[in-house]
Amino acid sequence: MKLSARNVLKGEVKKLTPGMVNTEVVVELAGGAEIVAIITKQSAEGLALAEGKEIHAVIKASNVMIATD
Amino acid sequence: MKLSARNVLKGEVKKLTPGMVNTEVVVELAGGAEIVAIITKQSAEGLALAEGKEIHAVIKASNVMIATD
Amino acid sequence: MKLSARNVLKGEVKKLTPGMVNTEVVVELAGGAEIVAIITKQSAEGLALAEGKEIHAVIKASNVMIATD
Amino acid sequence: MKLSARNVLKGEVKKLTPGMVNTEVVVELAGGAEIVAIITKQSAEGLALAEGKEIHAVIKASNVMIATD
Amino acid sequence: MKLSARNVLKGEVKKLTPGMVNTEVVVELAGGAEIVAIITKQSAEGLALAEGKEIHAVIKASNVMIATD
Amino acid sequence: MKLSARNVLKGEVKKLTPGMVNTEVVVELAGGAEIVAIITKQSAEGLALAEGKEIHAVIKASNVMIATD
Repeated sequence: MKLSARNVLKGEVKKLTPGMVNTEVVVELAGGAEIVAIITKQSAEGLALAEGKEIHAVIKASNVMIATD
Repeated sequence: MKLSARNVLKGEVKKLTPGMVNTEVVVELAGGAEIVAIITKQSAEGLALAEGKEIHAVIKASNVMIATD
Repeated sequence: MKLSARNVLKGEVKKLTPGMVNTEVVVELAGGAEIVAIITKQSAEGLALAEGKEIHAVIKASNVMIATD
Repeated sequence: MKLSARNVLKGEVKKLTPGMVNTEVVVELAGGAEIVAIITKQSAEGLALAEGKEIHAVIKASNVMIATD
Repeated sequence: MKLSARNVLKGEVKKLTPGMVNTEVVVELAGGAEIVAIITKQSAEGLALAEGKEIHAVIKASNVMIATD
Repeated sequence: MKLSARNVLKGEVKKLTPGMVNTEVVVELAGGAEIVAIITKQSAEGLALAEGKEIHAVIKASNVMIATD
């Protein structure tokens, strides 16, 4: 599947925090930075996410903001 | 200002494509990866964005998805 | 690629309206309903979207609202 | 109330999973497909959602992505 | 129509800036503050938006962030 | 930090409802209206949110919809 989302960042799962509906996924990116995702618990289970698993963080460009110091 | 958004990634502006309402901002992250943002043209002007300028890409965690191969 | 987004709806491209930054994509779903997407112009070109092409509309569950009459 | 959101899909509630803050709503669309929404628990209660209730799934066009095989 | 979106703020249209795909809508809220929306051009036309028209700004709770000084 | 998000509304925290992953924040705006945010529990703790604390609600313009009566 090829996706219109412009941002696909390679990383691995560092930590999973499941709730009743959503799961928080902390991802360590290839470059060393961290990115956090909130996805449904069922998605996390469907993807068989586990610490150390190689994944991609995917973000639609319209959801990215810019900040300056 | 301190923000609830969990994802703040350091980078610099690589390319700006202004439209009539929105501007596309291509950001080169510190680790070498690229990330693309769509913000309003007025925001891009208000932040005085220009190629080479150091900025941060900011993303709310609920807008990050996870993909596996 | 397997994605955490829970909503993947099969359809075909009915109409494309390109702007300078974004492109509007009208999709006719398998069931007959229509769904509209705004993606970047570069994504639309990268996916080689054209009228009649079979595609999927993809939506993160946290971006779906519910309305009652 | 008439809304700017371009996507309003008719369906009925198939399953509700309440958490402490959010509720997951699985909707069966008129055409047979399923769509999942995450809304606040208080919204789900305010709309008196229950299995079998006729509702609409509402999605802003800028939150729809496109994928190809 | 009753909507799950928790945030419905009363205001009036102060300024419209149409592009080719999207339209920027500046809204003056009842309390005096301003809020800016980007909606599709076709939505703006479908709602017959014009300066001075009374409208509501609608925001899903998962799209609101919090900042402290 | 200066942010591209066009909407920054002054208010104070009226109520906090923590879940396992997310926290619901009810904000009373300066003009008297209320706005609700869903942020991660860790963000709410990192910002030391508490009832009565002065904060800003921040919203990207592409996440604002318009409704008419």
